[in-house]
Amino acid sequence: MPKLVARAYTMSLDGFAAGAGQDLQNPMGKGGRGLHQWAFATKTFRKMFGQEGGSDGMDEGYASHADDNIGATIMGRNMFGPIRGPWNNSDWKGWWGDEPPYHHPVVVLTHHAHEPIEMKGGTTFYFVTEGLEAGLKKAFELAKGKDVRLGGGASVLRQCMKSGALDELHLVISPVLLGTGERVFDDFADTAERYEVSKFEASDKAVHYILKKR
Amino acid sequence: MPKLVARAYTMSLDGFAAGAGQDLQNPMGKGGRGLHQWAFATKTFRKMFGQEGGSDGMDEGYASHADDNIGATIMGRNMFGPIRGPWNNSDWKGWWGDEPPYHHPVVVLTHHAHEPIEMKGGTTFYFVTEGLEAGLKKAFELAKGKDVRLGGGASVLRQCMKSGALDELHLVISPVLLGTGERVFDDFADTAERYEVSKFEASDKAVHYILKKR
Repeated sequence: MPKLVARAYTMSLDGFAAGAGQDLQNPMGKGGRGLHQWAFATKTFRKMFGQEGGSDGMDEGYASHADDNIGATIMGRNMFGPIRGPWNNSDWKGWWGDEPPYHHPVVVLTHHAHEPIEMKGGTTFYFVTEGLEAGLKKAFELAKGKDVRLGGGASVLRQCMKSGALDELHLVISPVLLGTGERVFDDFADTAERYEVSKFEASDKAVHYILKKR
Repeated sequence: MPKLVARAYTMSLDGFAAGAGQDLQNPMGKGGRGLHQWAFATKTFRKMFGQEGGSDGMDEGYASHADDNIGATIMGRNMFGPIRGPWNNSDWKGWWGDEPPYHHPVVVLTHHAHEPIEMKGGTTFYFVTEGLEAGLKKAFELAKGKDVRLGGGASVLRQCMKSGALDELHLVISPVLLGTGERVFDDFADTAERYEVSKFEASDKAVHYILKKR
């Protein structure tokens, strides 16, 4: 059975997946860039953005395997861009330039219909307006038997854990405090016992946890 | 200058210092015991409760040094006991039996006056009703030039971080999800930037963080 997984999903020590105040200058919100230092330092991420070098070791191990057996990605609209409300003929095509680092179909959950956007390198953005369940169905169809990766944001992750749709979470805790932002583990009273930590280990930049559904 | 420190302060992966529903049967709230497995396994904690054996290694290293240079402890009333409201002549003397593991003066913050309680082994509980600042003043007096350890709970810790009174926090994250309980990092927008992680490392049971005031 294909699985729904979240990988390299990064949270601050105080529990936030992104800082407050997301906008064009701060795609990850205020302080959000510090959150992802562990990833930006890896060979895999540097290569993704056309840069040389980068770290080997534990962080690189996780980064380089994050897309293993992934056939499609699903994400909330805020992860796709800073636009809220109707698209108003915006030509926004995501944060990632002409050739996004996905190289597979990406389902974007939104309340506002939009034609698919085909990018270079195999990424096509599909927009689903009928809710999370319809979005997951579409993503699994597009993944053609492979797993689906949940990109974010925190509210989509929370919903998928609450419904039990998420099979596995690779959570990374960065040693930073953000103070405010999007809280990952919120209103989780009935959800916490569904998941357990099967493994954790620390690199010099972050702590990696694997959570699995019980 | 004597410092205010919190040590071996344990939080779940989802950010709670204790489970919900604290009572006589569950001093640490529902699920709270799982939170402290890393500590209960150490030589130091086992000895504290009259048991043989226990782990050496990283967890034991932190546990065995948690009281270094500590002259007094300060804690909120809920950490002292399950009684809420007036004492009503209760003979409650804490969770820890005749000889509590403190062996130094302990200041308990409460809204309800109570005579000091002298226990075996050097622990005396003092009750301060004039608020946190008065409690800290009393604790530093009793510590006679040594450091003061903040025992908990989460609301006292939060207040001491917000006011900047806390100099250092040894935070331990246990790989468990509690879902509900007392959240450690809450309403921290203006406080987060005051503290930074100076060190972190993982044992096989938990991750240890040292946070210092900037």
